[in-house]
Amino acid sequence: MDSSNKRIPLLKDLTIDNITDNVNLVNSKNPSPRFKFLLERLVVHLHDFARETRLSQNEWLEAILFLTATGQICSDVRQEFILLSDILGLSLLVDSIDHPKPAGSTEGTVLGPFHTHDAEQLENGAIMSHDQNGEPLFVLCTVKDTQGNPVSDVKIDIWETDSSGMYDVQHLEREKPDGRCILTSDEEGKFWFKGIVPVPYPIPHDGPVGMLLSKLNRHPMRPSHMHFMFEKEGWDKLITALYLRGDPYETSDAVFGVKEPLIVDLGRVDKDLARKYPGIHEGTRLMTYDFVLVTDKETVQLRDRNSVEALKKLNMSVKIVDGLPVPQID
Amino acid sequence: MDSSNKRIPLLKDLTIDNITDNVNLVNSKNPSPRFKFLLERLVVHLHDFARETRLSQNEWLEAILFLTATGQICSDVRQEFILLSDILGLSLLVDSIDHPKPAGSTEGTVLGPFHTHDAEQLENGAIMSHDQNGEPLFVLCTVKDTQGNPVSDVKIDIWETDSSGMYDVQHLEREKPDGRCILTSDEEGKFWFKGIVPVPYPIPHDGPVGMLLSKLNRHPMRPSHMHFMFEKEGWDKLITALYLRGDPYETSDAVFGVKEPLIVDLGRVDKDLARKYPGIHEGTRLMTYDFVLVTDKETVQLRDRNSVEALKKLNMSVKIVDGLPVPQID
Repeated sequence: MDSSNKRIPLLKDLTIDNITDNVNLVNSKNPSPRFKFLLERLVVHLHDFARETRLSQNEWLEAILFLTATGQICSDVRQEFILLSDILGLSLLVDSIDHPKPAGSTEGTVLGPFHTHDAEQLENGAIMSHDQNGEPLFVLCTVKDTQGNPVSDVKIDIWETDSSGMYDVQHLEREKPDGRCILTSDEEGKFWFKGIVPVPYPIPHDGPVGMLLSKLNRHPMRPSHMHFMFEKEGWDKLITALYLRGDPYETSDAVFGVKEPLIVDLGRVDKDLARKYPGIHEGTRLMTYDFVLVTDKETVQLRDRNSVEALKKLNMSVKIVDGLPVPQID
Repeated sequence: MDSSNKRIPLLKDLTIDNITDNVNLVNSKNPSPRFKFLLERLVVHLHDFARETRLSQNEWLEAILFLTATGQICSDVRQEFILLSDILGLSLLVDSIDHPKPAGSTEGTVLGPFHTHDAEQLENGAIMSHDQNGEPLFVLCTVKDTQGNPVSDVKIDIWETDSSGMYDVQHLEREKPDGRCILTSDEEGKFWFKGIVPVPYPIPHDGPVGMLLSKLNRHPMRPSHMHFMFEKEGWDKLITALYLRGDPYETSDAVFGVKEPLIVDLGRVDKDLARKYPGIHEGTRLMTYDFVLVTDKETVQLRDRNSVEALKKLNMSVKIVDGLPVPQID
């Protein structure tokens, strides 16, 4: 048996003042130091929240019903808890903690709930959005390392809405993926494809999260953007997006995802480019970007260092095990 | 428009260090001071949790999937989020905050997820459990005020499991309520009925909460108990339960509900009692208890006083509006 077992008190007569320590003692039989740490902090914050707000039973029940509805509206093509995390700023915060970016590398941003695992692997130059109402956009990007060297063979997941602001999975009659694809960077680190100019759109707001936003007097809009996810063995996975400058929601994104270095100005395909990429007409809207990836090793070192420094400031004594902090036990 | 609107910053370039304040500023357009306060504390604790644990994206996703599964297993007869709240000690904490008990009154405890709204209204003396395998139990109680005066016409909701440790709603073939009823206290504040001796049972542990308990190396058992809920206009609703002394899980209740004053010793019906209550045989197991209710007025005063004192200790400056604290704005 776990030796911590004997520390478990008699769980009787728990009060506002002693319940937190006792719940944490019971949970401390958990054999994983990391999971134990997570649960301990979770219980402390959950209980402190109730104590600080003097949470009423009616409010508690309303929260229970809200969480239940949030879970029940989830489906294969809808993830309301990710939306909830997004609009509370938690998603961006976790991304920032988990994927610290050294100077010169590309910032990450929120994944959102619309990434799928069924996008088609296409060739560079392919059409990834078949929406006839969308304004054609030629996208021409590079993937480099922090030294400026091209990174080839990166798997790049790309997804965007159609011109009505809906992702393919939001259309009930969806037969196959559209507005999304997987490309691979070439030997020069380049990838290119034909999409459409992104448009602003509301996050799904016909469910619990929409009700919450409305109660908070917040709009559900996201500024125009296109999602990109970069994966290659040995490199830190980069989840990011490019935003269009001047979008009406540029500074009020419902999910807090916009970062200045990710905002782009669209250009136009010129004669030289049109000649070089067959099928791309001069004058077509053009989006270019140089993405900069970071190695796993760099990321791990930076994350570990950040963790230790941040927790030191909070007077928490921790050690890093497998990249994540656990309490330092003397 | 809300005047706080102009305080909303440009929501761009949010970082680990500035995101919390910015999310709270955006949420501050909410017109309800209480809801604004709840959201503000929620966001602070949620973000602090992520910052203190350096929550990874994988852990975050695991939590998202856990919450989703918790919502999806909920049904008309199963409330997994209440279970989750119960096993984290939150339910008992909220009950303790919301229903403070002056000395001499009956302690409250967790509602649990098995109260229903379809229990039959029965006469005193009625049979409320038809489980032939249960050991018959005669229950004879009083409802009084803190001065010792009987309180009549109290609506009393009573529910217990059958002898296999299952509530009626857990049986798929359930046709009508059993093991539950609603009684009314008589002029002497008395109520009595025929139930069965409660047995220990596991909370439903075939879902996400059961998996969590198992991961935490905790058992899912609750000690033998019977639930009681008292309601009468002008009196604070009392949600409580009686526990059997000597139960193997008396000091390790999975949901932290046991309180010493709620533990009872079963007796036996004697000759006098058997004569007084027709149909009750001498020697039948007997449970008696004197419940003491508190008026709404007493509860509100005590709760307000407790809130102000507790939050003063936390250096929070609040005022009480409609019985609940909101920040004091000078």
